[in-house]
Amino acid sequence: MGFVPWAPFFPDMTAPVPISPDEMFMREALKQARVAADNDEVPVGAVIVHENKIIARAHNQVETLKDPTAHAEMIAITQASASLESKWLLECALYVTLEPCSMCAGALVLSRVRRICFGAADPKTGACGSVLDIVGHEPLNHHPEVEGGILEEECGRLLSDFFKQKRNPLDAGL
Amino acid sequence: MGFVPWAPFFPDMTAPVPISPDEMFMREALKQARVAADNDEVPVGAVIVHENKIIARAHNQVETLKDPTAHAEMIAITQASASLESKWLLECALYVTLEPCSMCAGALVLSRVRRICFGAADPKTGACGSVLDIVGHEPLNHHPEVEGGILEEECGRLLSDFFKQKRNPLDAGL
Repeated sequence: MGFVPWAPFFPDMTAPVPISPDEMFMREALKQARVAADNDEVPVGAVIVHENKIIARAHNQVETLKDPTAHAEMIAITQASASLESKWLLECALYVTLEPCSMCAGALVLSRVRRICFGAADPKTGACGSVLDIVGHEPLNHHPEVEGGILEEECGRLLSDFFKQKRNPLDAGL
Repeated sequence: MGFVPWAPFFPDMTAPVPISPDEMFMREALKQARVAADNDEVPVGAVIVHENKIIARAHNQVETLKDPTAHAEMIAITQASASLESKWLLECALYVTLEPCSMCAGALVLSRVRRICFGAADPKTGACGSVLDIVGHEPLNHHPEVEGGILEEECGRLLSDFFKQKRNPLDAGL
């Protein structure tokens, strides 16, 4: 920027808005979701963070692998376990663009992950409060913290655009 | 057998007792559970049957792979999907020695498997009726038939013997 005579009197409106670590990691999950969309998969992406470092990045691969278990979260859990050489992800946080389903929520309880952060809620199959609450289910022996709604709009729009385009392929790109 | 003068008058008590197909397939799942026990894994085994043929056999490998998602059912679903080259196991039945947990029950709903047959119920984490009923949960879009209690005693004993031995290693083999 050049000389701005009023600069000492006003905060710098051009400075980048600081984003929270949660938003930063969700942006990485969103990148993965876009990889899924590029491969004609339902666009869901996930990352797992340990000591502030991403140790797993995955996207939904159900169609590519023809495997109903190949959700982004499941692949990320397996990657993170391999990275830590541990079946438990005690000090880890998972960021995923869509609320985990029953399978993924069950897997996250088994993995003893500390924190689950999701973007858009899933009113059809979400199992972190929407349709079921597996992670908060009292009789199960581990209850991760859950935070939903991180970059919710962006995560949801990616999904709704994908399904809109599936219904009306001619609208692609509109 | 030699000459038995009363044979025409009595049913042959030495003839093998016919077993049901469900028992037959559960015996195959039990064989897999014993492989798990031999590898110092919680002894759970599963098979998946399609058109009366076993297309997947798997045992619990959580410790071996250090992966919390490596339950027998999950590995069997991935195998069966690969075998049928389909993400859906529409005409398949899964036989597993222990009632599926939330993760596995969720995966079975996603796979659209037709029938789930389990041996022992799991009062701690069972998600086919014991602690949760994911497969019967109304809002989810697929509801496999469920039958529990097939060779229940044998399936349960394998598990209780395993945990007894874990608690008191000196009792091994007693």
